[in-house]
Formats: sequence, structure tokens, C-alpha cells
Amino acid sequence: MKLIIAVIQDKDSNRLSDALVENEFQATKLSSTGGFLKAGNTTFMIGVEDTHVERVLEIIKENCKSREQLVAPISPMGGNADSYVPYPVEVQVGGATVFILPVEEFEKF
Amino acid sequence: MKLIIAVIQDKDSNRLSDALVENEFQATKLSSTGGFLKAGNTTFMIGVEDTHVERVLEIIKENCKSREQLVAPISPMGGNADSYVPYPVEVQVGGATVFILPVEEFEKF
Amino acid sequence: MKLIIAVIQDKDSNRLSDALVENEFQATKLSSTGGFLKAGNTTFMIGVEDTHVERVLEIIKENCKSREQLVAPISPMGGNADSYVPYPVEVQVGGATVFILPVEEFEKF
Ligand code: NI
Ligand code: NI
Ligand code: NI
Repeated sequence: MKLIIAVIQDKDSNRLSDALVENEFQATKLSSTGGFLKAGNTTFMIGVEDTHVERVLEIIKENCKSREQLVAPISPMGGNADSYVPYPVEVQVGGATVFILPVEEFEKF
Repeated sequence: MKLIIAVIQDKDSNRLSDALVENEFQATKLSSTGGFLKAGNTTFMIGVEDTHVERVLEIIKENCKSREQLVAPISPMGGNADSYVPYPVEVQVGGATVFILPVEEFEKF
Repeated sequence: MKLIIAVIQDKDSNRLSDALVENEFQATKLSSTGGFLKAGNTTFMIGVEDTHVERVLEIIKENCKSREQLVAPISPMGGNADSYVPYPVEVQVGGATVFILPVEEFEKF
């Protein structure tokens, strides 16, 4: 038995929840801030048998891994025209920081 | 030393807090959602000496264990009369998912 | 690799965050209540290599350790004049409860 603690971006949270449920893994979500990832983030706690750790890591990677996203140019309307970029830019989104902790005992009441 | 992480239903949270305080155990509560338990839930972190783990598990079981509760019939007033059930029904409430983690070092400043 | 879980008072939270960033340690903050410390508290999760555990503990101690603070007398205006204390009093503030947990595997996606 292991406890997987994954800190991911809020924007990937629903997608990861859905993928875990589809694969019949149960997770508890804690709202968290700062640190490992700059944007708003969510901490998932997932309790799994040893043999399922690799599968859960795959699911986290598929749904949350750091990637580049093309962001459409933002209209300078009401903003600073000096900083206006008239073409789409790539920004880094997503990412996951994952700790796998040993569990000595697991109980369900 | 062990760190007990218990995910329980919100409705059992105050009762568990009181029982832990009465028994002189200290807990930190994290607000959490989804996963192990369908309803709103709370995650307790309880740091205890090895010899006290069994006592804390008993307290969690006594105060949070999954049980059936009789729910009074809900008046169809303002609702859908078709789904009105005129007798009390049993619903499952409570439940606890508990991980006991090894602690390598414990400090208090 | 270790996961340091530190429960500290809200009032020390920004100071600890800043000190950790200055020292290039990454932390995730979870909002928490009750228990180890009476006042509102924050739970920090800090993942560090074994060789950095002592440094992080020093930083937590420097920024959060329990200390006495002189509190100015509070005017009885609108309150109970009977409990009015006309001289500054010392109150205990701060404090940290810290668990160091072993990490079996660490991943970044
Ligand atoms: Ni299986
Ligand atoms: Ni004892
Ligand atoms: Ni170093």
C-alpha cells in the first residue's frame, strides 16, 4: 500500500479526477497554494496497492504533464498598448510534483 | 511515531475532534473534497506515538464508522410528487479511510 | 528524499514562505485548522533531499518558533470593563509541529 501525493495545477484537476474514477482509483483533493507550481494548485491524495502505483503515475502524467500552450493575442483594449503582442505566444502550463509515501497500515471503517 | 491521515465525512468532524481532545490527542484538519467518500469530507492529520495508534483507530471507528441512518420522508411540497416516498428510508452515512504513515523524525519548535 | 509536513500559525506563513523561496526550497501550502496549534494555522509540505532536511528545519525554527509577545492593553470600550487589563501582557505566539516522512519515489512530470 502506498499513498501518492500529487500537486497539480487547478486547470488539470477535473480531468485527473475523471481519469482516476474511470480507472476505479479513489482520490481525495485538498485545496493548496503556491510552491511547487506557480499557479493555483490542487493536492491529490491517492491510496493504492503497490501493484497499481505505476498505473496511477501514468494517469497523472497523461493528464497533467507540463506542456506548451498557444495563447491567442490579447486585445490591448483597456490595457497597455505598449505590451500588446499581436501574435499567439506559447506558455508553459500543467505539471505535476508527485511523492510516493510508504503506508504501514490501512483501515476502512 | 506515526502520522495518521483519516478522511472522514464533514458531519462526523466535530464529534471526532471532541473525542480526540477528550483523549488528549492533537489533530490538524484539512478541508478536502471528493474521492474516498462521496459527501463533503475532512482530512484529519494526527501525530501519535506508536503505542497510541490502536487507541486513535478505536476513536475514529467509534465516531465515524459507516452506518445506516433512518431518514424521515420528505414532504413533496414544492418538489416532485412522483418521487415522494411516504415512509422513512435507510441511507448509508459516515465512514473513514485511514492511512498510518511512518514518521522518521518529529520536531516541535 | 523526505517530505516535511509543518503545521504553523497563519501569522508566520508569509515569513516562512519568503525564507523558503530565498533558500530555493519549494513548498505547497494547505489551509488547515485547529489541533496542534490553537490559532488559525497553515500546513506546509516541503519535498527535500535528505541532505537538506536540517537546513529546512532551521528555517522553520527561525521563522516560526514559539515565543512570547507583548500585547498592548485593550481598551474596554464596548467590552467588559471587569476584564480590562491596563498594562501590556505577554502572550505565546508562533510554534511549529513538524513531521519528516520518508519518500519512496519522487516524480516530476
Ligand atoms: Ni489490480
Ligand atoms: Ni500513553
Ligand atoms: Ni544542496
